[in-house]
Amino acid sequence: MHLYRTHSCSALRANDAGQTVRLSGWVHSKRDHGGLLFIDLRDQTGITQIVIPAGTDILETADRLRVESVITVTGEVVIREDGQRNPYLPTGDIELRAQAIDVQSTAAVLPFQVAGHENYPEDLRLKYRYLDLRRDKMHRNIMLRSSVIASMRQRMIAHGFTEFQTPILTASSPEGARDFLVPARLHPGKFYALPQAPQQFKQLAMVAGFDRYFQIAPCFRDEASRADRSPGEFYQLDFEMAFATQEDVFAVLEDVLSGLFSEFGNGRAVTAAPFPRVPYDEAMRIYGSDKPDLRNPLKITDVTTAFADSGFGLFAKIAASGGEVRAIPAPGAGDRPRGFFDKLNNWARESGAGGLGYIVFEADGGKGPIAKNLEPERVEAIRNACGLNPGDAVFFAAGQGDAVAKFSGLVRTRIAQELDLIEKNAFRFCWIVDFPMYEINEETGRIDFSHNPFSMPQGGLEALNGQDPLTIKAFQYDIVCNGIELSSGAIRNHLPEVMIRAFEIAGYGEEEVEARFGGMLNAFRYGAPPHGGSAPGVDRIVMLLADEPNIREVILFPLNQSGEDLMMEAPASVEPARLKELSLAILPPKPKATTQKD
Amino acid sequence: MHLYRTHSCSALRANDAGQTVRLSGWVHSKRDHGGLLFIDLRDQTGITQIVIPAGTDILETADRLRVESVITVTGEVVIREDGQRNPYLPTGDIELRAQAIDVQSTAAVLPFQVAGHENYPEDLRLKYRYLDLRRDKMHRNIMLRSSVIASMRQRMIAHGFTEFQTPILTASSPEGARDFLVPARLHPGKFYALPQAPQQFKQLAMVAGFDRYFQIAPCFRDEASRADRSPGEFYQLDFEMAFATQEDVFAVLEDVLSGLFSEFGNGRAVTAAPFPRVPYDEAMRIYGSDKPDLRNPLKITDVTTAFADSGFGLFAKIAASGGEVRAIPAPGAGDRPRGFFDKLNNWARESGAGGLGYIVFEADGGKGPIAKNLEPERVEAIRNACGLNPGDAVFFAAGQGDAVAKFSGLVRTRIAQELDLIEKNAFRFCWIVDFPMYEINEETGRIDFSHNPFSMPQGGLEALNGQDPLTIKAFQYDIVCNGIELSSGAIRNHLPEVMIRAFEIAGYGEEEVEARFGGMLNAFRYGAPPHGGSAPGVDRIVMLLADEPNIREVILFPLNQSGEDLMMEAPASVEPARLKELSLAILPPKPKATTQKD
Repeated sequence: MHLYRTHSCSALRANDAGQTVRLSGWVHSKRDHGGLLFIDLRDQTGITQIVIPAGTDILETADRLRVESVITVTGEVVIREDGQRNPYLPTGDIELRAQAIDVQSTAAVLPFQVAGHENYPEDLRLKYRYLDLRRDKMHRNIMLRSSVIASMRQRMIAHGFTEFQTPILTASSPEGARDFLVPARLHPGKFYALPQAPQQFKQLAMVAGFDRYFQIAPCFRDEASRADRSPGEFYQLDFEMAFATQEDVFAVLEDVLSGLFSEFGNGRAVTAAPFPRVPYDEAMRIYGSDKPDLRNPLKITDVTTAFADSGFGLFAKIAASGGEVRAIPAPGAGDRPRGFFDKLNNWARESGAGGLGYIVFEADGGKGPIAKNLEPERVEAIRNACGLNPGDAVFFAAGQGDAVAKFSGLVRTRIAQELDLIEKNAFRFCWIVDFPMYEINEETGRIDFSHNPFSMPQGGLEALNGQDPLTIKAFQYDIVCNGIELSSGAIRNHLPEVMIRAFEIAGYGEEEVEARFGGMLNAFRYGAPPHGGSAPGVDRIVMLLADEPNIREVILFPLNQSGEDLMMEAPASVEPARLKELSLAILPPKPKATTQKD
Repeated sequence: MHLYRTHSCSALRANDAGQTVRLSGWVHSKRDHGGLLFIDLRDQTGITQIVIPAGTDILETADRLRVESVITVTGEVVIREDGQRNPYLPTGDIELRAQAIDVQSTAAVLPFQVAGHENYPEDLRLKYRYLDLRRDKMHRNIMLRSSVIASMRQRMIAHGFTEFQTPILTASSPEGARDFLVPARLHPGKFYALPQAPQQFKQLAMVAGFDRYFQIAPCFRDEASRADRSPGEFYQLDFEMAFATQEDVFAVLEDVLSGLFSEFGNGRAVTAAPFPRVPYDEAMRIYGSDKPDLRNPLKITDVTTAFADSGFGLFAKIAASGGEVRAIPAPGAGDRPRGFFDKLNNWARESGAGGLGYIVFEADGGKGPIAKNLEPERVEAIRNACGLNPGDAVFFAAGQGDAVAKFSGLVRTRIAQELDLIEKNAFRFCWIVDFPMYEINEETGRIDFSHNPFSMPQGGLEALNGQDPLTIKAFQYDIVCNGIELSSGAIRNHLPEVMIRAFEIAGYGEEEVEARFGGMLNAFRYGAPPHGGSAPGVDRIVMLLADEPNIREVILFPLNQSGEDLMMEAPASVEPARLKELSLAILPPKPKATTQKD
């Protein structure tokens, strides 16, 4: 018989009755019952009930044990008496009558309970993460994460991708967030950087002739923590394809994501491939966001013309000054009491808007403060434009440029929440495509890159030379699920002369470009294939699937919000000798002005 | 038709003739042939021959292209003429008659050639790694590495293991090599450390109730480079099992490794599971090494008694003073000329030994300087003890303790090489088991841990309390292949009281143990399962399979021997502002004594 176990704690059934078996696990709970002792013995697969007969030597041993002690129990499988069976437990038809108990490890008094569903302060949970992880929900989250990643890998390999490990000790990135630095002992005064993403390496792998790269890639950013971003490290499904068009990239990721979300979505609906492609301009116009939640059925309509020169002076004035008025439908909201509209108006004011005007459509026309001042045919035109009927309402966001687009997006979300219109139990994906290559920097009035300067401009060199820069789109895209951006991505600019011209438009001279990005530019000068990719966030995907709003609930051993590992006590001070070895000194916490004598 | 390709460069066959297809790839080579231009077009799958007809517009374009430029070729598949077919190329029956060529990327003059098999200086190759990786052997090595890792993962998952990601920004290890440190910006003066291995995290995962953990784990050591160790980061197949005995660990790894080496061994023989288990003492005695190469059939025999009080004074004296004489057989070496024995004698002297005595067995007894002085029945006893026959020879290593064991191991290797006895095309595995828990520190005369202080001593607390420490073995083991240690491993000590007693024997007080290893000890106080594991080196496994003696040949983008990334130019200086942000200052290269005034 195996020293520790013949079966797992979820394996035994009624037809095992009569067998002598051995189980090992944690004492999940103990109950005294008329001289007998019942123990729920837990391992990672489940629970088996142990009965310790009265009057035996082992009863005393068992009685002394605290919950969460680890024991090995040898005994006979017996059918539970009728009425004692537990239909909610896979092993609920049987129990194990203990003949011997080996205590493998005794537990001290716990800082918090493992059994049960109580909430405890996060820092306490993180300090004793090894206990926290024994709790059912955490265990399931972490196992889900592992299964999701294993499935991602298999799906990428099935698409002909090969996983490579790119360096973790590398050079500082030319752009993006703040790197973590690593002092190089053998090169005093010099530092490695931890990669914010393997962006350059994956592009160099393409230049090196590898066709389809992927990696469950650890990435590092020295940035403040957010609910959906760990303060130190995170993982992305990093991939890149050579000789690929944007549609090729989409086809791979659509298949992987729709497959993955169907596999782990627990019956929740998943957008079938191909996912909707929403041009950036359209996303801003119709959803008021470049990461629209398509579970929300509401669509925004531009109704500026309906207000131009109208009797509703406020909006007429906005229309006259080049502003816009956008209508956000509120189907079925016509019967809501006045308080509903007031509440939304207050919310809008708190959000920084002037208020939230509306029209309620009734059988005999529009009602409400705006409708009072608006010509009935204009009210009717708005109703038609928004595809609404009597009994519905519509809200308005008015203002200038981007601000009105973004605010109408907030209104769209808020109204759908209020009216409970957001589709439940669904994962709704879309691509945002055709991002503008350039934008006007509002502070400087100059042309800046809108997003990633390394994306290929649509139309290539010809567009850069012949087109108004603000009309040039990039082969750049975002993949969005339920309003959450999982990743951006792009067909990369692999042509040095196009890259230099693209930077020139944004005000960078050739010398500066060569100095800052010479490594990549040089690589592209030895024969580079057209290529592109993306890098969906693994943690975010698992958060969506586990329905967890806090990223630390889907990470095995996360840093806390302050970037500390409370269990391992990191970061920590180091011996002065170590610093000396690294040719480093720590600056005093508060530098004071000193009088310099020389 | 796809913008870049309808087929890969290895796909087309005779039965595709007549089709119009599109290929993309690198210009591997160009040949002019009577007005026609032939291009070998290469992608990661293979090569297809392109023919550019004479007198066409595209000939001029193609003619100007340097090798390694990237092109897309559209044309008709045609059967090659008889006599032009290439039986060594999968696509050798056809060629592609080009109708259109799109130049995707033009190549500059290369720093070295991609086609061909010339050797170039390693630093040049590393600087232009993206070119180096296009070369056939490098491409195959890296693809092999990826396939090996993917197979490892599948094999571990098939054994019920789950892959988890453990933190990379973590705390300094309590033992082992030098960590890389990462300054924590938000915690001035404090540092994270990169993990030397996820040892503590995998043990904590066991304490957290995960049953079978594995990870293709990035590990970091700030150590000097060696041929088989990268200076910065390396990967190991890190795994750990709860409720597992040593034999359970062996069964998993034997199945994974024998499967893996059979899958990728290209027909080379692989030890079938179960692998031989060789106790440490026996390994030192029979093989003169704790990482014996079992492809070498030679076994060492202790022949001290044959020399005790014998006529061969030198060895008799060594035997009398408590030393040992070990015999290393040299089957069939009896007919070697005197020069053979002299050469080995010189080698032994260069290796620091006094020389290398020998006996040649002939039909009428032993020959050579030792046999001359040794009683014939003693010569015969040695021949019998070593299982040798007339025509064979035997060499002797004599001396004290470990030194003689180690030297006899060197002799064993050298003789097998000289006699060409080492099995070819084979991977021979063994486990070294029963490592001693303690040893005498020869400098201090005190008891030290022999290897890993965190392994479970065989016999547990009872052995620690009742046994001579030097006789205690640990549940610690090494897995060895062809004389290369792939990993050590152990059943861990999960019992705080046993760990404290084990350290006490090695001279550490309880307080010190609590201070240094309190994190793990505390975790073990809340119910820890018995557990153990191992962590075979991924890079070393790939080196063995690829038959590469240099680790950088099996890593995509390695640091060079000085720890520099010549391609990305890391490590590098950073802006003073970055250092200030990290509360760090760089010490001047050569600190000088300064006069302090106050």
